Amino acid sequence: MKFIDKLLKVQRKNRSLLCVGLDTDPAKLPRHLGASKNVVLRFNRQIIEATSDLVCAYKLNLAFYEALGEQGWHVLQETLAVIPRHIVTIGDGKRGDIGNTAERYASALYEELAFDAATVNPYLGYDSVEPFIRSDRHCAFVLALTSNEGSKDFQRLTVHGRPLYEKIIQTTLKWNTKQNIGLVVGATHPAELQPIRAIAPSMPILIPGIGKQGGDLQSAVRYGCDKNGLLAVINASRSVLYASSGKDFAGAARAEAQHLRNQIEQLRTQFFS
Amino acid sequence: MKFIDKLLKVQRKNRSLLCVGLDTDPAKLPRHLGASKNVVLRFNRQIIEATSDLVCAYKLNLAFYEALGEQGWHVLQETLAVIPRHIVTIGDGKRGDIGNTAERYASALYEELAFDAATVNPYLGYDSVEPFIRSDRHCAFVLALTSNEGSKDFQRLTVHGRPLYEKIIQTTLKWNTKQNIGLVVGATHPAELQPIRAIAPSMPILIPGIGKQGGDLQSAVRYGCDKNGLLAVINASRSVLYASSGKDFAGAARAEAQHLRNQIEQLRTQFFS
Repeated sequence: MKFIDKLLKVQRKNRSLLCVGLDTDPAKLPRHLGASKNVVLRFNRQIIEATSDLVCAYKLNLAFYEALGEQGWHVLQETLAVIPRHIVTIGDGKRGDIGNTAERYASALYEELAFDAATVNPYLGYDSVEPFIRSDRHCAFVLALTSNEGSKDFQRLTVHGRPLYEKIIQTTLKWNTKQNIGLVVGATHPAELQPIRAIAPSMPILIPGIGKQGGDLQSAVRYGCDKNGLLAVINASRSVLYASSGKDFAGAARAEAQHLRNQIEQLRTQFFS
Repeated sequence: MKFIDKLLKVQRKNRSLLCVGLDTDPAKLPRHLGASKNVVLRFNRQIIEATSDLVCAYKLNLAFYEALGEQGWHVLQETLAVIPRHIVTIGDGKRGDIGNTAERYASALYEELAFDAATVNPYLGYDSVEPFIRSDRHCAFVLALTSNEGSKDFQRLTVHGRPLYEKIIQTTLKWNTKQNIGLVVGATHPAELQPIRAIAPSMPILIPGIGKQGGDLQSAVRYGCDKNGLLAVINASRSVLYASSGKDFAGAARAEAQHLRNQIEQLRTQFFS
């Protein structure tokens, strides 16, 4: 199945644009889970089982697994194995390297780990992105305007009268012959989401930055969606994972995910019906 | 010891600006080594033992280790353990993520794996680089003008009349309060090395792209070095690693490394004495 069809299908089935970011930090886990090697995997499994009917995607931040050292790869694989197949998986490593190296990264993420999608940094240009968009079963979410403070340092520089991130988006539109490029735009930039959606009317947009980072959920839904009220993938990580540090952590994560999903659905109804 | 002092010391001791890139690809290894789990490690060990008196640094391309799957981390650790301590090690992952995630990457590379330096993508701005430059024992090599074809897509865009990569270099100069930022500039851009060295007279410059990629060694030495004929770190990967596919691979790698080191030394003598 094409990536874009898989995404649309699960967004409709679960009536959800919510993506839960499994940025699992061993230092923040409920104490009763202990500190054994498998604690991250046990935590992830319970979070996934508690939320998988409420989300369209899970995003796994690769840095958090790399930080686990030798066991990280195993935990990644086993976590992915728990995620139901109809839900989109995003390998969030923000990879960007020269062609022959980018091929390695793409092969690790798409073949070895079987992610559906990956986040990609555009700074190295076409040959760094191309291995991630060879098949329309996979999607490369290209960093456009990221959610962090540092996004102002270079992404907003003016190029021919327009911000650099816009120039990058325009260029990715030309690369998008297989309809399998998406964008990353932080919810912390609500004023920019509308013009970005206008430039790229049918790309999926991954929107991190709600919750802990303080992004604007209303704009994320209103301007992040395509004309049918779909294709925005709105990510929350810490606010869901660490909703409770007690024995009820999975239930609390479910309640928070449900709350977010419902808020998003309400806004979708308001703006797209 | 400060990173910059460690680099200068080993460049003087080994009279070498050569960095060997351990981008080890299991598919390209000499057949007689077999295909066991440890083949990459055995190959790396022999390459390091055959070349460590001829180099100032080893650069490990993380994609090649990630592509090994579950054993990749172990192979990284064991390879690093073989490298003599006075030689600089560079974790080449071109990482770039928001602050709290960049901290994870930096901790994995600097604390868990004990690399001296890392390559970093600047597109996400200051908070994505800062965790890599907290200590002057470590160095972040920031991607400026990369060796690949795609470097023209965005890196050369005009910002206030100057190329984007120059704007990025100017900004990293302001961040460089601990003298521990370096640049990555491909040897495939010989005409740009001189102006870049003029802007950043005392930063280490990591210069990939000689050998297979066809970069210009003479310009790499002449314009990549600081005024003392040091601080250029000139990387060769495939031309050294795969100098022979026979049983003599380590000897052939040594011969190729020696040839490159001597060529570089000759050029240094020509331009800096």
